[in-house]
Amino acid sequence: MDIALLGGTGDIGQALALRWALHTDYGIVVGSRERERARTKAEEYVTELESRGVEREIEGTENAEAAAGADVVVLAVPAYHVADTVEAVADELDDAILVSPAVGMTKDDAGLRYKPPGVGSVTALAADAAPDGTRVVGAFHNLSADRLANLDNDVDQDTLVVGDDPDARDIVADLADGIEGLRALDAGPLGNAPEVEGLTPLLINVARHNEGMHDLGVRFE
Amino acid sequence: MDIALLGGTGDIGQALALRWALHTDYGIVVGSRERERARTKAEEYVTELESRGVEREIEGTENAEAAAGADVVVLAVPAYHVADTVEAVADELDDAILVSPAVGMTKDDAGLRYKPPGVGSVTALAADAAPDGTRVVGAFHNLSADRLANLDNDVDQDTLVVGDDPDARDIVADLADGIEGLRALDAGPLGNAPEVEGLTPLLINVARHNEGMHDLGVRFE
Repeated sequence: MDIALLGGTGDIGQALALRWALHTDYGIVVGSRERERARTKAEEYVTELESRGVEREIEGTENAEAAAGADVVVLAVPAYHVADTVEAVADELDDAILVSPAVGMTKDDAGLRYKPPGVGSVTALAADAAPDGTRVVGAFHNLSADRLANLDNDVDQDTLVVGDDPDARDIVADLADGIEGLRALDAGPLGNAPEVEGLTPLLINVARHNEGMHDLGVRFE
Repeated sequence: MDIALLGGTGDIGQALALRWALHTDYGIVVGSRERERARTKAEEYVTELESRGVEREIEGTENAEAAAGADVVVLAVPAYHVADTVEAVADELDDAILVSPAVGMTKDDAGLRYKPPGVGSVTALAADAAPDGTRVVGAFHNLSADRLANLDNDVDQDTLVVGDDPDARDIVADLADGIEGLRALDAGPLGNAPEVEGLTPLLINVARHNEGMHDLGVRFE
């Protein structure tokens, strides 16, 4: 299984790259719009893993090249870059599953608001931008990147997997379950993505108002 | 502390009445639009508690009479009855804190959608309907009524408390914490209510798609 993390130089990309490299034997490629930036970050991840006695190759390259040949392509970019990132790699996607972890949010006086794009969710936006027939799955929205990126931390949280293709959901759920302490739960078809994505601003608001709670995750039980 | 549960003959009203009666010494009044129905249900609750060796008086009466003299008035009615229920008891509210546990939802092919009223949330709708200066708090949205109402079950879940008055949030959080196994978390000002209420359809969708998960609750950790 080969995973490309587009925008893998950012917070959630880093978190997923390190965790998959630590807990699984999946091939990991870090993508960025700038090849050199991707290479530098990939080296940083390798060094971080080496410092923990884990020998791992992680490649870093430009997004389209990272996507080429990957089984799963994660759009680890901000919501407003999802559409252009998908378009930039569209020719390389082949049969790859596209994974969307981004959430649209705004801030007002009270806190963070869930603000989906017009099509209903960022996951739907990714699906709209992708070539016809591309399997698109929303996942990893509600993970604290900081909590995962520090490999000293236990993960201990759930993530929700949403999308119209049940097989693709299963594959992405397996990827998530490969990370120790992370449990994937099935949230059903793509139409359920707004409520899944809406959990992220809630977590940030709750963390803000309760002492001692930060990098908050969630368990369904 | 005297709590009136308007619409206390319904699922969430029953759940909260039984749990508060079991775990606390708060005065509990069950309200309904029909006095007789409230009386009958209150007697049922008393009988249920007696069967567990708990001697408790629970009054049942018409909503406005139930609200009169209560410190906290819970609007345990469906979202579409929140405004008219508030209006029906407005003259009796005095300094009472109004608590809104209702959520607006619709169903489509994918699952349940969060569908707030035009003012942004059901909690905001309750605040709009209430007399000026009434302290309104959203809470108990995400609890499974069935899970709570069966007193054999452990509660083991979190609930979120949202509203513009911090003291009122604290009071309602204390009421929640009075129920064994329930933990209240502060979700901040009223403007954060949409994301709080939106958790309920998510829980229902997740329960539907994962075997063995029903009456689902959530823990923030």
